[in-house]
Amino acid sequence: MSKLVIVGTVAFDAIETPFGKTDKILGGAATYIGLAAAQCDADSVIVSVVGGDFPQEYIDMLESKGINISGLEVVPEGKTFFWSGKYHNDMNSRDTLATELNVLESFSPVVPEAYKNAEVVMLGNLHPAVQLGVIEQMLDPKLIVLDTMNFWMDNTLKELLHVITKVDVIAINDEEARQLTGEYSLVTAARKIMTMGPDYVIIKKGEHGALLFHNDEVFYAPALPLEEVFDPTGAGDTFAGGFTGYLAKTGDYSFKNMKNAIIYGAVLASFCVERFGTERLQGLSRKEVYQRLKTFQNLTQFDIELT
Amino acid sequence: MSKLVIVGTVAFDAIETPFGKTDKILGGAATYIGLAAAQCDADSVIVSVVGGDFPQEYIDMLESKGINISGLEVVPEGKTFFWSGKYHNDMNSRDTLATELNVLESFSPVVPEAYKNAEVVMLGNLHPAVQLGVIEQMLDPKLIVLDTMNFWMDNTLKELLHVITKVDVIAINDEEARQLTGEYSLVTAARKIMTMGPDYVIIKKGEHGALLFHNDEVFYAPALPLEEVFDPTGAGDTFAGGFTGYLAKTGDYSFKNMKNAIIYGAVLASFCVERFGTERLQGLSRKEVYQRLKTFQNLTQFDIELT
Repeated sequence: MSKLVIVGTVAFDAIETPFGKTDKILGGAATYIGLAAAQCDADSVIVSVVGGDFPQEYIDMLESKGINISGLEVVPEGKTFFWSGKYHNDMNSRDTLATELNVLESFSPVVPEAYKNAEVVMLGNLHPAVQLGVIEQMLDPKLIVLDTMNFWMDNTLKELLHVITKVDVIAINDEEARQLTGEYSLVTAARKIMTMGPDYVIIKKGEHGALLFHNDEVFYAPALPLEEVFDPTGAGDTFAGGFTGYLAKTGDYSFKNMKNAIIYGAVLASFCVERFGTERLQGLSRKEVYQRLKTFQNLTQFDIELT
Repeated sequence: MSKLVIVGTVAFDAIETPFGKTDKILGGAATYIGLAAAQCDADSVIVSVVGGDFPQEYIDMLESKGINISGLEVVPEGKTFFWSGKYHNDMNSRDTLATELNVLESFSPVVPEAYKNAEVVMLGNLHPAVQLGVIEQMLDPKLIVLDTMNFWMDNTLKELLHVITKVDVIAINDEEARQLTGEYSLVTAARKIMTMGPDYVIIKKGEHGALLFHNDEVFYAPALPLEEVFDPTGAGDTFAGGFTGYLAKTGDYSFKNMKNAIIYGAVLASFCVERFGTERLQGLSRKEVYQRLKTFQNLTQFDIELT
């Protein structure tokens, strides 16, 4: 087992979906990534920042899941990052109602000494300069995974492209892959991204699953067909957390093992969307994860005899 | 091995895509279904109608593939069904430029005596009354598969719903499933359709693959991620032809074997879209099919140890 460094937001979210709305609840990319990685029994640390308004019980909960929070800076006089969004009826698009950066504005990540030798680094969606700052503190990382979004392509493209040269895996959604490359075909887009730095490209397609590209190979992980998606918030981060958590736990970074890791990510993401925020992930049992892995096997495995 | 009865159009198509346009070429649902089923070595017959303008060389080609054409009526004084369409840039939508029913207008299907005992029936997209006419001629079918489209939902819903009560499998696309049920969730839509008659529901999602539902089980067949789709015409019919051809060839109508059948359908559809019309299917070798089945294995199979 190797260690996993997670950088990303730890935040308050207020979410509205056709099924209801929440007050300020626990959210943030690093939170979802950490909770998902914890399901894989990964030895992970969260590198992030919160304000004095962040409840101790949230910190306790993260610790109780086995997540190391020694990299979680608390700024007593500051306020925690806050995001608020409203999903449309089809759940595939949303409006951001509020984004208050607060303590994130002057965030300078510090990787705890005990985790500088981690083999796996998950760079959650953040300013590319912050992501770069984490990479530079690592001693000998074996696998750096990057998440990002269109906002950074629009506003900090040069810095983002520099970070992209330094990572092994990029995980972005289909529209972001198209924006980054100017290519409509996801196969062509993935090829182009592989020339920018990463050896592996994950393209997330929401309810249509995710594709993993490496050289001329492709692997496809479906999303579990669901009767209803209650709240999609954090699904992509949960996916990334399952992916990196499984890889860190197994210490095997081969393409073959990445297939398993991506299935783990898809399995955990399928739980995430069943309740608001992190509720489902917090209450998730190993038995449920095991049973859903079985469901994913039944969903995708066939046995045509190729003679 | 059991026999397969295919009913559907045999037609002229004129197709325009961003990559080019064709004159009148060979098309029609039954043509694609038959060519795909032939790749599975199914013993199939096409029940359809063409006009005196239909070239003998097309008929010869179908026969050379091992497709029985004793159910293909030729109306010497009539004209063959003609469809013309133009695809938009994203290839996911198209405009119909012309539809000339011609001999199809008065088509009364006759299943040849030698095929009335067939176990598998593939009802290609046609007027529900014609589909019903075929069902009524069958002696003891084991598996009736129905394709249809929004046009029949709009114009002949009552007759369509009657046919739906008589089939075992329905294969429609996502938008059609939503229209038929009024449900946005495909899982909910599939459940609702299973109460209308069919025990199995296939929902085709184009480039996002296809889902097979049966009771509470789901199987997902991806579409092969392609750099470019040259011409999507006939992909759904090819998929249906691979599905029913494989089932007829193996004579095993279990849910487990349907998973294999759906993969066969997806494999053959992935070839269909590589060239205009039936060109790719006509020239397809067994070796190519075998290799692409391997590709689909690599695309979807993983080996997480569930202890």
